[in-house]
Amino acid sequence: MVAGECIFCQIVDGRIPCTKLFENNQVLAFLDINPWSEGHSLLVPKVHYSLLDQCSSSIVSAVAQHIGPLARAIVGAVGADGYNVLNNNGRSAGQLIDHVHFHIIPRNSGDGIIQHAPQGKYQPGRIEEIADMVRELLK
Amino acid sequence: MVAGECIFCQIVDGRIPCTKLFENNQVLAFLDINPWSEGHSLLVPKVHYSLLDQCSSSIVSAVAQHIGPLARAIVGAVGADGYNVLNNNGRSAGQLIDHVHFHIIPRNSGDGIIQHAPQGKYQPGRIEEIADMVRELLK
Repeated sequence: MVAGECIFCQIVDGRIPCTKLFENNQVLAFLDINPWSEGHSLLVPKVHYSLLDQCSSSIVSAVAQHIGPLARAIVGAVGADGYNVLNNNGRSAGQLIDHVHFHIIPRNSGDGIIQHAPQGKYQPGRIEEIADMVRELLK
Repeated sequence: MVAGECIFCQIVDGRIPCTKLFENNQVLAFLDINPWSEGHSLLVPKVHYSLLDQCSSSIVSAVAQHIGPLARAIVGAVGADGYNVLNNNGRSAGQLIDHVHFHIIPRNSGDGIIQHAPQGKYQPGRIEEIADMVRELLK
């Protein structure tokens, strides 16, 4: 996708309207119009990257430092008692818009908004095999 | 919970073992021993905070800048085609250990590892009411 056609780039540019919560030179936060819960918001870097691991550390830091203050305000506004921060990368992970975004999702006890598969166990030796590969790739 | 009794503080201190992926002065990443998928990892600040919104922006930045490189290495190691970054705050949001942590969860198409409730719609005017409250709380 070309950045010019990206829905979030068009929201950043003001070509598509949004219900804005916060904005500075580097980031924009707005309410999701199809929320999983009241107050479900999206926080995006203004510059277009598809995946989090493509962003520079300065962009990641610029975005990340706003998550906590935004979450606290959103949770306070809707009277929730918790929140998830969720960032999906790739179709398999549920990413629908190819512009890095963090979901901030207010939660209340028993709301069942996010569910996950049962936890597994590693076969003997497998966890160390994976760790070795990861550490090698981090070099 | 006192930080001294916190499981993640004990992992940081080396009192409880872990399968370490990365460590520096501020953060530790290790493989979850009860993974949602192969390679499911946890990234934590070494200092004890319960909730993300309690962390200073410098701690958040120190943690966040490692998510992308770690995710890329983990996804490469297990041969996944996507990943979620998930941070839960509060029991209602699924937080089980009261020490800030980011899950990095490798994903493959159709694995069904994370599911969410259907998206909703706001009643007329409600989205602006919420935005007004959030903006007021951000002041």
